Amino acid sequence: MTSSTPGKHLASMRDATPLVQCITNYVAMNVAANVLLAAGASPAMVHSVEEAGEFAAFAGALTINMGTVSPDWADGMKSAADSAAAAGRPWVLDPVAHMATSYRRKVVTELLDLRPTVIRGNASEILALGGGNSSARGVDTKDDVAAAEDVARQLALSRQCIVAVTGRTDFVTDGTRTAHIDGGSAWMPRVTALGCSLTCLVGAYAAVEPDAFTATTAALAHFAVAGELAERDVSGPGSFAVAFLDALASVDGRTLDDKARVRLS
Amino acid sequence: MTSSTPGKHLASMRDATPLVQCITNYVAMNVAANVLLAAGASPAMVHSVEEAGEFAAFAGALTINMGTVSPDWADGMKSAADSAAAAGRPWVLDPVAHMATSYRRKVVTELLDLRPTVIRGNASEILALGGGNSSARGVDTKDDVAAAEDVARQLALSRQCIVAVTGRTDFVTDGTRTAHIDGGSAWMPRVTALGCSLTCLVGAYAAVEPDAFTATTAALAHFAVAGELAERDVSGPGSFAVAFLDALASVDGRTLDDKARVRLS
Amino acid sequence: MTSSTPGKHLASMRDATPLVQCITNYVAMNVAANVLLAAGASPAMVHSVEEAGEFAAFAGALTINMGTVSPDWADGMKSAADSAAAAGRPWVLDPVAHMATSYRRKVVTELLDLRPTVIRGNASEILALGGGNSSARGVDTKDDVAAAEDVARQLALSRQCIVAVTGRTDFVTDGTRTAHIDGGSAWMPRVTALGCSLTCLVGAYAAVEPDAFTATTAALAHFAVAGELAERDVSGPGSFAVAFLDALASVDGRTLDDKARVRLS
Repeated sequence: MTSSTPGKHLASMRDATPLVQCITNYVAMNVAANVLLAAGASPAMVHSVEEAGEFAAFAGALTINMGTVSPDWADGMKSAADSAAAAGRPWVLDPVAHMATSYRRKVVTELLDLRPTVIRGNASEILALGGGNSSARGVDTKDDVAAAEDVARQLALSRQCIVAVTGRTDFVTDGTRTAHIDGGSAWMPRVTALGCSLTCLVGAYAAVEPDAFTATTAALAHFAVAGELAERDVSGPGSFAVAFLDALASVDGRTLDDKARVRLS
Repeated sequence: MTSSTPGKHLASMRDATPLVQCITNYVAMNVAANVLLAAGASPAMVHSVEEAGEFAAFAGALTINMGTVSPDWADGMKSAADSAAAAGRPWVLDPVAHMATSYRRKVVTELLDLRPTVIRGNASEILALGGGNSSARGVDTKDDVAAAEDVARQLALSRQCIVAVTGRTDFVTDGTRTAHIDGGSAWMPRVTALGCSLTCLVGAYAAVEPDAFTATTAALAHFAVAGELAERDVSGPGSFAVAFLDALASVDGRTLDDKARVRLS
Repeated sequence: MTSSTPGKHLASMRDATPLVQCITNYVAMNVAANVLLAAGASPAMVHSVEEAGEFAAFAGALTINMGTVSPDWADGMKSAADSAAAAGRPWVLDPVAHMATSYRRKVVTELLDLRPTVIRGNASEILALGGGNSSARGVDTKDDVAAAEDVARQLALSRQCIVAVTGRTDFVTDGTRTAHIDGGSAWMPRVTALGCSLTCLVGAYAAVEPDAFTATTAALAHFAVAGELAERDVSGPGSFAVAFLDALASVDGRTLDDKARVRLS
């Protein structure tokens, strides 16, 4: 890929309306489903160990977010990740606050061993995954994306996956290729679960575009452009959240290519 | 009933402010509670097997949605359904994606045996319940409401319940009487959990109106008219969701009778 | 405290961006997180018994809401409350519908014994906690705040905590001092989980202001003023919910001091 064409991937994703199995946290479930529906995908929240693996075998992609994880949910996550891997389907890991408690550190270790296709986190989470120092306390981030780039690159190489670090400027890498995506809105960290929802959107693009680096970059560009479009005329985090869903739905391929600010290298 | 008077039933429902116990999925809980509050009912999300049955004995109606079901929730559902039936209270089943996995097929069989008063689903779900073929993969529907009418009628007769198939045009039957309801908005399938919320609203009407066919038809008419009113001046699924709650609250009995497009036979 | 200065406490809270651990119900999680982010705090929804206690030891405050409680969640609640108390951190109890079922009555008794710093409920819940009669059926309230004032005062003295009764006019007491807070909007009871979210906001203020009576009063004043500001130009519960988040974020210390209607005695 020598140039960024997120608009083409948006159109392909909408044409396919991929079925995305999201095992996400309680806070994010509704928002994530609305983000996928607005963007043009088909969300399915299926988490129970009794069926998560069976479902993952026919979903287009799987996303796993450990925001409100507990042991029974972790069992469903592992079963689904196993099944997605066996079926050759992409799966995306969102290691929310994985460094906050010993239980969470155990869960993230088990999930990483199931070989995610993409890992998406904030700078603090990616730094901590790579063994770096992080100043964060939990779900919030105290670190800059730029500070996590080296760690992200090493993590991508060692885990053979795509790593996406999101923040003011997003960074995506497969260990060799890199993309920086500008855009978004200062309101985004003031609305809960948008990062979690972005993880699910990465799944939607990855269900359709086989190159996970390209898919991830396109999903992040879609999100960033929608954020930028949404912040016109909003007066706070409540109205931003509403306008953001509208913008995710209304942006088309041409607008996306026109507005996206992606630097590849 | 020879003519449709949903406005009268709306007024009765609001006067009674029925307490509706909703055992629904994680995605829908917040939306469903807001739909009931906007419409004029009083929602209570009580699902744990430790108390679901005790609560169902004094709630006005019970609604059960298996969207994110797991074994402990299924136990609460069955306990509540048993208790509602014993107390002579109506209960509404929403068999979300019941054909998607073997676990789900087991759960829906157990719930059906507890004799729901109303079953509400999309065309794919109702077709699959009746043993028909369905082209759907999960929570989305690939089938038309019209294609499910015969199966719905047979299901209503064999299960001695009301069956509602919702989509572009809704269909309600008790096996003999039928109603078609037009209206709604093309934005509705782009907002998550509206169908799940409609199931809860059917519970609110059924708590007050003893004829469950009439109650279901009135609830669907209320929803359809609110959808139609809401879509004026919205610019996407985010703003539609907001306007829809406003419209559910603002529509009064006279407007409902005036705008509802119900065909009875 | 001889006069009310909620604006000063708002500014302190925003400066500190306190990490508030919220163990709340499924309906409220998303709203509560958005309320805290809009107001200026940092929410963390961490409930599992595997980590709730560990997390509570470093969170600024803990809030516990039993709206959709089940045994595994109750274990996490008790572990977190123990840990918060041991670490000298404030914790706030929201005893949702604790009188509705025998299971709930058992849970609330156990939580009360863990010595909450603040209890916030509606009039029916506080009356029932104090052993008084209540006419409520569940999560709704049939009782006036004024009717619960004596019970609230006795409860505050016997439990050595702050008691806040919220409704049209809010009442806060430590058993000796009292505050009445006017404001809010008639739309507030038509939007689900706002009371639950207020409980979390009380936690945010209590994480920063050591006098829990003052902290609680300031949080309630912030909420009431935001409600009053939000209801201008809204057309129903959907648009109110959006405007309310905007108002929580936009109100500054000066506006809060100017608009707050707090009567101390």
